[in-house]
Amino acid sequence: MADATTTVGALKDAAGAFAAARHWEPFHSPKNLAMALASEVGELLEPFRWMTADESYAACRDPASRAAIADEVADVFNLLMLFSLHSGIDISEAVTAKLVKNEKKYPVGGDH
Amino acid sequence: MADATTTVGALKDAAGAFAAARHWEPFHSPKNLAMALASEVGELLEPFRWMTADESYAACRDPASRAAIADEVADVFNLLMLFSLHSGIDISEAVTAKLVKNEKKYPVGGDH
Amino acid sequence: MADATTTVGALKDAAGAFAAARHWEPFHSPKNLAMALASEVGELLEPFRWMTADESYAACRDPASRAAIADEVADVFNLLMLFSLHSGIDISEAVTAKLVKNEKKYPVGGDH
Amino acid sequence: MADATTTVGALKDAAGAFAAARHWEPFHSPKNLAMALASEVGELLEPFRWMTADESYAACRDPASRAAIADEVADVFNLLMLFSLHSGIDISEAVTAKLVKNEKKYPVGGDH
Repeated sequence: MADATTTVGALKDAAGAFAAARHWEPFHSPKNLAMALASEVGELLEPFRWMTADESYAACRDPASRAAIADEVADVFNLLMLFSLHSGIDISEAVTAKLVKNEKKYPVGGDH
Repeated sequence: MADATTTVGALKDAAGAFAAARHWEPFHSPKNLAMALASEVGELLEPFRWMTADESYAACRDPASRAAIADEVADVFNLLMLFSLHSGIDISEAVTAKLVKNEKKYPVGGDH
Repeated sequence: MADATTTVGALKDAAGAFAAARHWEPFHSPKNLAMALASEVGELLEPFRWMTADESYAACRDPASRAAIADEVADVFNLLMLFSLHSGIDISEAVTAKLVKNEKKYPVGGDH
Repeated sequence: MADATTTVGALKDAAGAFAAARHWEPFHSPKNLAMALASEVGELLEPFRWMTADESYAACRDPASRAAIADEVADVFNLLMLFSLHSGIDISEAVTAKLVKNEKKYPVGGDH
């Protein structure tokens, strides 16, 4: 599966099915999922904290550190999928609406 | 656009085009994007911090608070898209690989 | 009041008295306070996300941005004080114990 | 050492001396320390994410989980001390100033 052809819905379904098979839904309130998301983002930050910008690019290219980073990105993304499921908020709609808002807030050629 | 039919790639392209039109790429190192992600997740947590689990479900149903939460979800998702672009890590591949790993770590019917 | 002469306990008492006068204690479970802490740390990160290391030093020297950063540091610290109060964990004891542990984990002259 | 008698300055000195002995200062820009702080807060959140408020109180009383939580609190506090050192922001002054501000924002007996 690759981003070019995979729908957000397919990844949401996969995250939901994984949790359902383990009977984890009772724990998945929006509050708890937001908290879990922050915790996983903390793990994604961890390898980058003492790096320069250039080193952070290099870490994403190096096979070993890249795999570890991809692992954390996946955890963050999965929690976002679960949040979408349990909040009923459609990610694609939310993103589209926000881009329209941001077009006005940050006009092209503007000073920001 | 809705999650059922929108590819991750389409949302990634939209996030990338928005940033490119404003010449923001020089700021978008993996390090900086991870940091920005943590900041936006902090905003997503904000409304939930004093709520019970039930209140957090209710907040996601109430039209006014739902719109504010959707706004923050969009910001978090956009940063994850930019992180994917600048790290070169394909989200769908990372998620699929992680689900395989997690199937072993948390077997169905296991004690977790 | 200055750090050289102010005890952690005095700041903890101040944070506790402020919350008690407003009857906020029922909301201050360790879970909620940890979540609030993450949210405030997100605000502390916000101004730094697109900066270089040098720019982040400069932002702490510039009077206007320094005041805004100090404001966020205070929010983070206050939440840590409330967490200490409601968890019953003495910060100074925890820090002293952790420094002993870290002395072994990161020996002076070691490779870390 | 206990919070009642330990000054913030003493803990700041300890954190600074530990880092200096290992020549870590070049990494300790305000930007990097803020990022590290977010990462450590993520670890503090981790045990609480699926708990209820009551369970989070219980986790802080249980000796084993309490020790693990104290460990994370110490990491968070140490980073805040390093941030204070490298930003030059006095925590006690910042907290005192913020309490004055908050007295006005949240008057006792007010509706908040």
